[in-house]
Amino acid sequence: MEFRGSHITSVTQFDREAIERVFEVADTMQPFARRERRTTALDGAILGNMFFEPSTRTRFSFGCAFNLLGGYVRETSDIKTSSISKGESLYDTARVVSGYSDIIVMRHPQSGSVDEFARASRVPVINGGDGPNEHPSQALLDLYTIKKELRANGRSVDGMHIAMVGDLKHGRTVHSLSQLLLLYRSVTFTLISPAELQMPESIVTQLRNAGHTVIETEDMEKGLADNDTVYLTRIQEERFSDKLEANIYRGRFKLNQDIYTRNCAPNTVIMHPLPRDSREEANELDNDLNQHPNLAIFRQTDNGVVVRMALFALILDVVDLVEARASGVPWYTAGRFDN
Amino acid sequence: MEFRGSHITSVTQFDREAIERVFEVADTMQPFARRERRTTALDGAILGNMFFEPSTRTRFSFGCAFNLLGGYVRETSDIKTSSISKGESLYDTARVVSGYSDIIVMRHPQSGSVDEFARASRVPVINGGDGPNEHPSQALLDLYTIKKELRANGRSVDGMHIAMVGDLKHGRTVHSLSQLLLLYRSVTFTLISPAELQMPESIVTQLRNAGHTVIETEDMEKGLADNDTVYLTRIQEERFSDKLEANIYRGRFKLNQDIYTRNCAPNTVIMHPLPRDSREEANELDNDLNQHPNLAIFRQTDNGVVVRMALFALILDVVDLVEARASGVPWYTAGRFDN
Amino acid sequence: MEFRGSHITSVTQFDREAIERVFEVADTMQPFARRERRTTALDGAILGNMFFEPSTRTRFSFGCAFNLLGGYVRETSDIKTSSISKGESLYDTARVVSGYSDIIVMRHPQSGSVDEFARASRVPVINGGDGPNEHPSQALLDLYTIKKELRANGRSVDGMHIAMVGDLKHGRTVHSLSQLLLLYRSVTFTLISPAELQMPESIVTQLRNAGHTVIETEDMEKGLADNDTVYLTRIQEERFSDKLEANIYRGRFKLNQDIYTRNCAPNTVIMHPLPRDSREEANELDNDLNQHPNLAIFRQTDNGVVVRMALFALILDVVDLVEARASGVPWYTAGRFDN
Repeated sequence: MEFRGSHITSVTQFDREAIERVFEVADTMQPFARRERRTTALDGAILGNMFFEPSTRTRFSFGCAFNLLGGYVRETSDIKTSSISKGESLYDTARVVSGYSDIIVMRHPQSGSVDEFARASRVPVINGGDGPNEHPSQALLDLYTIKKELRANGRSVDGMHIAMVGDLKHGRTVHSLSQLLLLYRSVTFTLISPAELQMPESIVTQLRNAGHTVIETEDMEKGLADNDTVYLTRIQEERFSDKLEANIYRGRFKLNQDIYTRNCAPNTVIMHPLPRDSREEANELDNDLNQHPNLAIFRQTDNGVVVRMALFALILDVVDLVEARASGVPWYTAGRFDN
Repeated sequence: MEFRGSHITSVTQFDREAIERVFEVADTMQPFARRERRTTALDGAILGNMFFEPSTRTRFSFGCAFNLLGGYVRETSDIKTSSISKGESLYDTARVVSGYSDIIVMRHPQSGSVDEFARASRVPVINGGDGPNEHPSQALLDLYTIKKELRANGRSVDGMHIAMVGDLKHGRTVHSLSQLLLLYRSVTFTLISPAELQMPESIVTQLRNAGHTVIETEDMEKGLADNDTVYLTRIQEERFSDKLEANIYRGRFKLNQDIYTRNCAPNTVIMHPLPRDSREEANELDNDLNQHPNLAIFRQTDNGVVVRMALFALILDVVDLVEARASGVPWYTAGRFDN
Repeated sequence: MEFRGSHITSVTQFDREAIERVFEVADTMQPFARRERRTTALDGAILGNMFFEPSTRTRFSFGCAFNLLGGYVRETSDIKTSSISKGESLYDTARVVSGYSDIIVMRHPQSGSVDEFARASRVPVINGGDGPNEHPSQALLDLYTIKKELRANGRSVDGMHIAMVGDLKHGRTVHSLSQLLLLYRSVTFTLISPAELQMPESIVTQLRNAGHTVIETEDMEKGLADNDTVYLTRIQEERFSDKLEANIYRGRFKLNQDIYTRNCAPNTVIMHPLPRDSREEANELDNDLNQHPNLAIFRQTDNGVVVRMALFALILDVVDLVEARASGVPWYTAGRFDN
């Protein structure tokens, strides 16, 4: 896979070598994300951070990643302030805004919209989430986190056991992560969900065809046993046609300190794509685990920054400049990444 | 006309010499907009990009233009997040925010609002559109585009033939462009619109008094013949008091490949201020012309960036610094401007 | 008080020495805010400017202050575009976004929210207003303004006479300013308000216990006499449970040229936290005073920038770098601060 000048719209673009290249570059970004050093590799470049759907977290993460490389960020955060509401096509929007910036991140509620946009764009486009479809940087940061966490436990992605819990039908993150894991060997998936919210059959089949083991269950406590990683998800109420229906499922599969201790192997890594729904009726991942050393959810979001820095640096071909243009950080930066 | 420290609120401020000066500086901005080089002429300066009405495109264009000159951009994109909703006067808003930034771009739905704001501002203000009234940088980029396109055809603005099509009553862009063309010689205007959406009589009279020829017609095909430029517009439904009334006119005057080939002279330049309404019921400029070499609509928006860079550089008096502070661009910048 | 790495969430954190330190640093920021010079002290640092409640003015002020120190600003201006609407806790939001930026400014409609956020944040947090509760930088800029204005009149904060006028019950600014004035000596407060919108009894008691004199009255004209400063406030209609009730009080206490001349001592400084409500039915501070030399309201907002620059520089410990990294300003900067 050639990164230079490429669009990143789908996890299916990646082979294992490309993934490892992203992770290798992401590792070199850590000192910059931790503010031990700074770089001006992209000084003068402009990111068009186009969010046509609410997402403070992802928008911030991409924006900060670009700033950390020394670039400018111009952005929009609301479809209502857009010409699209006056009947403009994605083609036109893409032709126009790709004349303004050096690279574009786009989030949009419609499946396939980012692909359509990318085809018309004159600059590289990264998919920041196109509705229920794809969100490749999230899958990359999830896999990067799994790899780093397991390495600390002396394990690797090949051969690992992972439980995925919750709304596996609508959960874009578990779909995309599964796609990436097709490139690895002998993973055991335990898929824990209500019958109505199971992982799509097509993905289960793909996993099995790739030589992985897939166990499907509605019994959470049994499913939690003997895993390296437990990946929890939120009930995606915004993806239900009937929002009330979503409430039936909220709160059915919860992880808390007690359930974790009784069922999970000692070093089981706890992951969640965030936001987690901490309202009492949902609470899929309890706050009583907030201090647990295996809770990796905030390491996930931290990792999101370096993975996105890596994508920007690879696509805009400045990986070698990052170090060449690095310098010290003179302002206060206490040990913020000890979480 | 003195640019240094001036407000730009109306096309009527410009004489022909001032226009030519903007275009001359805009030409020198091209290598920076195309990312062949970069400059830090405005490194440290702050643009207050104040949009009290939705406009992603114009907001991005001004913001990127300022970033391309090396400056910071602070912005607002919504009147609801503003103190104006708590009863604050434009005078107060202007006094306050002009203490924060070095120059302000303001868009506001009310005619005359930007003038009122500029009178109270302590820093230069550029009108980014005040409702149905003025949007001077759009008129400048349109004229700059016409000039460049015609020059490529061996023609000039003086003596050209231009057809304006659509909602000429509400179309701010055709009004402003007409104002600028008062400064040129012997232009032939063919104004194609429904009788109810004709160009205001006062403008037609001004054009004739300036020695131009004006033909008004409802017959699109006849009107298209024998022009250097066809300038299409969108039915400005947001300017109609009754939105349903707007629908009567949508889709009545369309340009597509077939109509163009049958009626237009070979090198006729196709322009549109964008956004164009690509919904089936409107579709005033068909996508089947998207690959046509005379379709200048995306060159228009590209030209908007350099014209706005020129205005910033002239008003803040850093034209000479642009080159003095220029350097190379090390990141990937494939031939994006070959459209 | 140690500034380095600290959260600033309440005026009660400050002792008199800390206040004086902020003001001393703010004084050194004036040439940078006035664009006589520029600095890159925070070049590469990122501010997370998180506004979960509308406030263009405060958001701009903090953002520009950070840009003036050379830093980047990433921001959000709307709670609807936030994960909080998907049930995310402030704890999670804080853990996540504090991994993205070097310092955070947060505004939020709920009292206590910023404290809760700050406890979970991995980087310093400044309270930009938590509903009716605190807005410490506003209190600091108010006191800084009073001190500067009185010094010009040969007076000092100790021993001064100040009238506070309007909605003293809901007015966060007069509460916070009163808290800071507890640290000074022998101030005479004349509190002018409708009986129903009086200053909370607890604050009056604190002021008296600190040795200050407090006079409460509904008679505006009498109350205005013999003060160094008159501090007017807006009826905070957004803090009323019944918005119609707010209308009863709007316009009851107004200051205009005539009332000022008849009642106020010659050099009485006129202040208002802004926005002032200039609609006819409110108009608590008339525009006929706009040219009055003692009208300090726009000097207040200008002072807000330098006070916020001082807080950033102190917390991130770059005070010494500001001068070390200063240089000249080459762009047009006419005498904008002569107001």
